[in-house]
Amino acid sequence: MLRRLIPVFNPKSIAVIGASRRKGRIGRELLHNLIEYEYQGKLYPVNPYAEEVHSIPAYPSILDVPDEVDLAVIIVPAEKTLEIVKNCGKKGVKGIIMITAGFKETGEKGAKLERDLNRILKKYGISMIGPNCMGVINTNEKVSMNATFAPTQPLRGRISFMSQSGALGAAILDHADNIKVGFAKFVSLGNKTDVSGNDLLMAWEDDPDTDIILMYIESFGNPRNFVRIARKVTAKKPIIALKSGRTEAGAAAAASHTGALAGLDVATDALFEQCGVLRVSSIEELFDIAIAFSNQPLPKGNRIAVLTNAGGPAIMTVDALVGAGLELAKLGDRTRWKLEDILPEEASTKNPVDMVAAAGPREYEHAMKAILADRRVDAMITIFVPPIVTKEIEIAQAIAKTAKKYKKPVLSCFLGRTEDSPGFVHLTEHGIPSYIFPESAVKSLSSMVKYRTYLEREKGRPRTFKVDRKVPKRIFRKVAKEKRTWLAELEAFDVLKSYGFSTVRTEVTDNLEDAKKLAKKIGYPVVIKACGEGIIHKTEIGAVVLDIENEKDLVSSFKKMVSNVKKAGHTPDCILVQEMVTEGKEVILGMKYDNHYGPILMFGTGGIYVEYLKDVAFRVAPLTDVDASRMVKSIKAYPILEGVRGEPPSDVDSLIESVLRLSQMAVEFEEIGQMDINPIKLFEKGAGYKIVDVRIAIREC
Amino acid sequence: MLRRLIPVFNPKSIAVIGASRRKGRIGRELLHNLIEYEYQGKLYPVNPYAEEVHSIPAYPSILDVPDEVDLAVIIVPAEKTLEIVKNCGKKGVKGIIMITAGFKETGEKGAKLERDLNRILKKYGISMIGPNCMGVINTNEKVSMNATFAPTQPLRGRISFMSQSGALGAAILDHADNIKVGFAKFVSLGNKTDVSGNDLLMAWEDDPDTDIILMYIESFGNPRNFVRIARKVTAKKPIIALKSGRTEAGAAAAASHTGALAGLDVATDALFEQCGVLRVSSIEELFDIAIAFSNQPLPKGNRIAVLTNAGGPAIMTVDALVGAGLELAKLGDRTRWKLEDILPEEASTKNPVDMVAAAGPREYEHAMKAILADRRVDAMITIFVPPIVTKEIEIAQAIAKTAKKYKKPVLSCFLGRTEDSPGFVHLTEHGIPSYIFPESAVKSLSSMVKYRTYLEREKGRPRTFKVDRKVPKRIFRKVAKEKRTWLAELEAFDVLKSYGFSTVRTEVTDNLEDAKKLAKKIGYPVVIKACGEGIIHKTEIGAVVLDIENEKDLVSSFKKMVSNVKKAGHTPDCILVQEMVTEGKEVILGMKYDNHYGPILMFGTGGIYVEYLKDVAFRVAPLTDVDASRMVKSIKAYPILEGVRGEPPSDVDSLIESVLRLSQMAVEFEEIGQMDINPIKLFEKGAGYKIVDVRIAIREC
Repeated sequence: MLRRLIPVFNPKSIAVIGASRRKGRIGRELLHNLIEYEYQGKLYPVNPYAEEVHSIPAYPSILDVPDEVDLAVIIVPAEKTLEIVKNCGKKGVKGIIMITAGFKETGEKGAKLERDLNRILKKYGISMIGPNCMGVINTNEKVSMNATFAPTQPLRGRISFMSQSGALGAAILDHADNIKVGFAKFVSLGNKTDVSGNDLLMAWEDDPDTDIILMYIESFGNPRNFVRIARKVTAKKPIIALKSGRTEAGAAAAASHTGALAGLDVATDALFEQCGVLRVSSIEELFDIAIAFSNQPLPKGNRIAVLTNAGGPAIMTVDALVGAGLELAKLGDRTRWKLEDILPEEASTKNPVDMVAAAGPREYEHAMKAILADRRVDAMITIFVPPIVTKEIEIAQAIAKTAKKYKKPVLSCFLGRTEDSPGFVHLTEHGIPSYIFPESAVKSLSSMVKYRTYLEREKGRPRTFKVDRKVPKRIFRKVAKEKRTWLAELEAFDVLKSYGFSTVRTEVTDNLEDAKKLAKKIGYPVVIKACGEGIIHKTEIGAVVLDIENEKDLVSSFKKMVSNVKKAGHTPDCILVQEMVTEGKEVILGMKYDNHYGPILMFGTGGIYVEYLKDVAFRVAPLTDVDASRMVKSIKAYPILEGVRGEPPSDVDSLIESVLRLSQMAVEFEEIGQMDINPIKLFEKGAGYKIVDVRIAIREC
Repeated sequence: MLRRLIPVFNPKSIAVIGASRRKGRIGRELLHNLIEYEYQGKLYPVNPYAEEVHSIPAYPSILDVPDEVDLAVIIVPAEKTLEIVKNCGKKGVKGIIMITAGFKETGEKGAKLERDLNRILKKYGISMIGPNCMGVINTNEKVSMNATFAPTQPLRGRISFMSQSGALGAAILDHADNIKVGFAKFVSLGNKTDVSGNDLLMAWEDDPDTDIILMYIESFGNPRNFVRIARKVTAKKPIIALKSGRTEAGAAAAASHTGALAGLDVATDALFEQCGVLRVSSIEELFDIAIAFSNQPLPKGNRIAVLTNAGGPAIMTVDALVGAGLELAKLGDRTRWKLEDILPEEASTKNPVDMVAAAGPREYEHAMKAILADRRVDAMITIFVPPIVTKEIEIAQAIAKTAKKYKKPVLSCFLGRTEDSPGFVHLTEHGIPSYIFPESAVKSLSSMVKYRTYLEREKGRPRTFKVDRKVPKRIFRKVAKEKRTWLAELEAFDVLKSYGFSTVRTEVTDNLEDAKKLAKKIGYPVVIKACGEGIIHKTEIGAVVLDIENEKDLVSSFKKMVSNVKKAGHTPDCILVQEMVTEGKEVILGMKYDNHYGPILMFGTGGIYVEYLKDVAFRVAPLTDVDASRMVKSIKAYPILEGVRGEPPSDVDSLIESVLRLSQMAVEFEEIGQMDINPIKLFEKGAGYKIVDVRIAIREC
């Protein structure tokens, strides 16, 4: 446990400042919850207008409490909080839960109040949860603290949960109670003035009561810290996150391919994927998965067996399994012989094993034993559709009893029943994750497999290359000074070269005679491009001519191009003469600076259609070498780079290196706003790549 | 109602053959259900060993019943069914529900029994549901028939449901009861020997008790009939289908791009999309959507307003809305002024409208009125997170009362509550679809919008072109006779030409001298290809040379190519000399014959990487002109064909026509097994297209 959070989670005494005698008031319900949940320390209601609250002696001020106070829970009007927190400081209180709202969520005046509050906290070394929050729960038997005003008394469990929304937190306590899920700790984060989500992750990393961490968040305070901390935590216990506000980012228009494609919440996905956090998209899924993790061991692999007493639900389960990328286990012959001995003739002993409607507890037990003993099976889903005769409770008992004997996860689906039906309750009480529909069981198993894979995968290390930082520094400064957003073509190429990227040979001129000489020097075929203010979409206005094969073509193309550009209302500043690269596979590498997440990198299938094909992957910089390799290999068209239809493999290693160089550049130069390196022509293995075109924009920072 | 199904759904008298006195036996539970559900006709138990069953006089045989019998429900061992059905025929029974199992689902012996059974049915003109089924329910008050052995007595409602799985049907009745959803009719289809799913669709098309049709199916008896019938039905009432067995089709290996891509259940998706059936992927979703359709009007558009008393859940709802392709309604100024009058200062009057935690029934009512009156709003989701004070029942009353006053759909989410909580129950009882999580509400609304869009979209008509069927007929016969699977290149081109497709100019030879002459005739640049037995993957073995610019190149390429082919162990039969097409966008058109669905067509982004980019669309032939146009326009890269980045638009009309020609060919020649037309070079608008390459395989039929 983080030392500074001990007074918040394990206080020996609590003052409830603003404790109220009126039912329905927050100051009353919170005190009531503390009493009702049998808090194991001393309670001191503070209320200047009452001698006792809820049968406990009350004090007019925290300063009057005749004892040490570890934690103060504050429920007073916002304008009174500064003085009260000062008094807490004087009293030596080290933890505060600030329920009071009316701070930065209400506008500038509240924000100022919140800043003042924070200064007082820092002065006295107090840790504070909130403000504008619903409270904190620690179910540890030695503490037994429900310092919330939620109407639900939570069950004890091994899941710790943090919520950035108080209302959602209340709804979640309510839902958890309905489905009999317990918590170790629960925190409503509020405005996160002092204690952040990252602090809680650190606190729970080694908390012996916490096996699983759930979080509902709407924004990251510090995404980079989150990555660092979450990576450490997920190596020890799973984090399952519900992150909302997915569509917010989509609003901002963007001028680059990367910008246009990076709109839809890809950064959060990338972030979670990089640090092994399991993302879910609804509260329902959050709990479906949590109960699997908190009750069952991780599967060793992705080979799943399905045992059922009815065909239809098994087919649905297999559909969901295959859809989730899991495998239907192939049962061994011995397993099938054992099943044949137990089951009637009409049964199917092939996975999914369909015991048909007559199957009773004995069949469930023996079939489970045969299947779970098979080393080709990593996990199991048992399905039961209640027929008229068999008692569901007996089936549930057989499943729970048998599952305990094996170290493989068993999840159950009692189709169409309710959470209150007797079989369901028995399973839940005996540690078998139970679901009403098979899709939920499959989703949970697939998350377990995903987490297992994450635990096993190499994490890699960051790589830093020797680069020349002076060139980009000078160029970015110049561009900023000239109030430009976009770098000129040659500037952009120079930035790339200084970071060790390989680019096509590019020369610059402003006249035809010179162009002829440069073309000869570079060697035909060449490409010419007109550059200058406003000449952005070159293809559209005819400001680029590809594949010029000889001097005669060069002359006519040069003239035509200049006239095209003028017709479009521009005057070229200069003309680029470039080597024409015909070979190679086209890929794109890009970057976009997100105000929240920092630099987001993109890699994908390249060319001018990239925005339509959308075969791209995103990561948040910085990347490790393994991150970069996984990123490159994650796009749909990756097999093409490995070589298909008789083609030789491409130089993927050089590509991965270029991703790492871009990651380094993006981190070292935060002034880069967006960047499209498109296309990169990737050659055969060993032959590297060449960048044909690049656009770089800087941002204000 | 289909005339022949009247005895099944509206019988005036029922004989239960195999009625049993023993509790827990199907023959007893079924009779019990009929009595318990208060069947409005006469019941005749038939049992040779009992004088009365369940207090009703019993008869030894159907022939002994002293009255007319409309419907016989049969629960006897399979081997006795033939005689009993014969007797039913003699008695004049016109409907049978055959519960008995042990027919084709058990193997060849059972299949023969089933065929014999079918013959007897036909002879006597009897309609039969089953065998191997769970029974039939008709909740119409004048009939009130629960002829199933399920342990649940269904509520009355306006949803009719058919299930191909008996067990799933039972689970669904159970689940529906838990969430208080009622049915009009319920049918467990069983083996579908006589009455099929299509028959039920026709029966329910004009059934005044049925507003919505739900189906769980594992296979289509006759997919083409399904399309025809479902198109008619969905024009009148929604069909919501859960089709399992999605992954089955994926197993078959395929030698064409189309075959490889068409594996994953795309045919079912295509089929449903073509006839407006809404597909869901779980029972949960099936009911979430059904309760929305059965209680609320269809929205006029996709602009959704969200009203909430807490921020977090609203963000989640907006995420889900945008993710589902719905729009967040922009509220008019007047609406926002009205909201400002009603709501406290901290509230947000921008959609999502957040009334903050203090909102009571009055706020809900007035805010709903303001929002629902706004013509920029097509539908509404109201969210409520129970805070400590407000009574949820009052909120529920306000929502239900207000929603009734407007002709716009209102869906509710009482976050984290249970289906039994008082507010939830009030809403459900008053016709407001209620969900525990906002994602379910969004999914339901999005299905309603989808159905509305389907209803409004033009259906189009099939187009038939004048073609020459003699050529393909001759070629397919020849290929079959020679026991070949694949057509030779020239044969394939001839087939295409006979159907009016436009192909690149192609000549054939077996020697270099001739090739020179042909190349000159066609005009350089040309392409040469080696053809012959076993030369399939031409690119890989160097059996194709592109872009030959002159005779000198032709000579060297020709020799090199022949030697390549020999090195690969083949002998070329002939050499194709083709016009080289450099212009044009590459698309692919394909076809695969599915044993179940018939010809499946594919269209997509072309070239050799089609399998990796997977930007393809599928439809089941035959297509209407509107189908073809929608298919072409549905791929991700379609904007490229319309012209992006200054490019002129492509000749999409000619492409749509070629899709229709392919559809016609696929229907007229069922011997075509698979076909890749890849690439098609599509030129600028008005300039048509040219097919560069085609592979056609025939199948045994």
